[in-house]
Amino acid sequence: MERLSIVKVGGKVVEEKDSLEKLLNNFSKIGGNKILVHGGGRSATAIAEKLGIETKMVDGRRITDEAMLEVVTMVYGGLVNKRIVAALQSKDINAIGLTGADLNIIEAVKRPVKDIDYGFVGDVVRVNTSELRVLIDSGVVPVIAPLTHDGKGNLLNTNADTIASELAIELANFFDVNLYYCFEKKGVLLNPDDDNSVIPELNYTQFKELQQTGQISEGMIPKLDNSFLAISKGVKQVLITNPDQIIMAKGTRLHGDKRNHF
Amino acid sequence: MERLSIVKVGGKVVEEKDSLEKLLNNFSKIGGNKILVHGGGRSATAIAEKLGIETKMVDGRRITDEAMLEVVTMVYGGLVNKRIVAALQSKDINAIGLTGADLNIIEAVKRPVKDIDYGFVGDVVRVNTSELRVLIDSGVVPVIAPLTHDGKGNLLNTNADTIASELAIELANFFDVNLYYCFEKKGVLLNPDDDNSVIPELNYTQFKELQQTGQISEGMIPKLDNSFLAISKGVKQVLITNPDQIIMAKGTRLHGDKRNHF
Repeated sequence: MERLSIVKVGGKVVEEKDSLEKLLNNFSKIGGNKILVHGGGRSATAIAEKLGIETKMVDGRRITDEAMLEVVTMVYGGLVNKRIVAALQSKDINAIGLTGADLNIIEAVKRPVKDIDYGFVGDVVRVNTSELRVLIDSGVVPVIAPLTHDGKGNLLNTNADTIASELAIELANFFDVNLYYCFEKKGVLLNPDDDNSVIPELNYTQFKELQQTGQISEGMIPKLDNSFLAISKGVKQVLITNPDQIIMAKGTRLHGDKRNHF
Repeated sequence: MERLSIVKVGGKVVEEKDSLEKLLNNFSKIGGNKILVHGGGRSATAIAEKLGIETKMVDGRRITDEAMLEVVTMVYGGLVNKRIVAALQSKDINAIGLTGADLNIIEAVKRPVKDIDYGFVGDVVRVNTSELRVLIDSGVVPVIAPLTHDGKGNLLNTNADTIASELAIELANFFDVNLYYCFEKKGVLLNPDDDNSVIPELNYTQFKELQQTGQISEGMIPKLDNSFLAISKGVKQVLITNPDQIIMAKGTRLHGDKRNHF
């Protein structure tokens, strides 16, 4: 199978001009098939504030009422996505910006209300990649915004880490998928206060042990859960890293193990 | 050659929920290959106002400074475009929302400053449809927002009527293109105060005569100039109509003539 690199980038990296430029330079150096999945939460919060819409977060997740759905549709699907596309085009990368609604790539359901009503937030139910693969096969580079749809005409806000792992899992049926979760740090840190305490290799058993001893920071846990799920479902490699290290393939490399695979 | 319908819709039609729903129902009934090109000016003006950004228009064209470019990128590329895509998906139309930057479809140059500085407004220089045609051939329906790019990383605001005619002209090399300009009226009116005074057929000579006598309203002139240009460059049929009449192919049908064709 051919190789496919899926790079997920969130946080400040995609939202500040200098760091975005640096990221896209690094991304443009990746050979072969590739996909960029981006966030945009800080910009959404900033635009919402300017529009007088209050941002409410629960456990790091955005409560998405109708007004906030408009904001994330504009910011993720429009502002952040199309800026990245235009920038990649200037580097001779034939990018296409998509949400999960485009080509019906990612169908989701509005998250059922339990303790918390997250509003128009989508839980992924199906990933359809047939047309996406036609594009990838012809050298096009998809840039995916963290929005899905419910097939009934509604857009839904969906976590970008989840979008990246769900796409990776589905595309692992057709490609050797390498998934890169990029953020500000150089990898998973053993000591959150020491940027150089990167754990170079991590398997599921070790992750669960470190989680129990409280050595892995709260914020990393959903990212790692997504990553190990992806590995257990056939994604060849997951690397947690920062954009400068993609080409060197440095960072924290995750491995499946018996408890994870079977 | 296969037939391709390009439907341009602007104004209130795409920006109000009921009229959008009606439009998309009509659009979904068009058989065969099709493309939807949309505007979104009213929404852009409304969002800009909420953000405290003043809208300045000259001759019906939006002055697009950096702040306004952000707004139109969000509104055209995100809000309006992705809502249409999600709505079409709910009607089992495999839509994909694109700007001129995506797949490098429409390259433009920032309009040179003469009497007026329009800011980040793009004049089309090149239309590239190779990947777009792959999508169309596999049954995908592109939904195009009125944004282009300069190939240097900048998005540009571009008139949706122009986007529709430029796409029609380029795609006429590969398809029998039928171009529909949809707006609130039933066609080109001989008397602007009488909605039933639709001119059923119009050739270029007649148009120029009516323009000289002042019988065609100012606002129609750029639309008609675009239309006759499209016909002179190989677009098979141009119809100026409202969305309810697309299927019946009613409205004002434009024809080339000697002065136009040769």
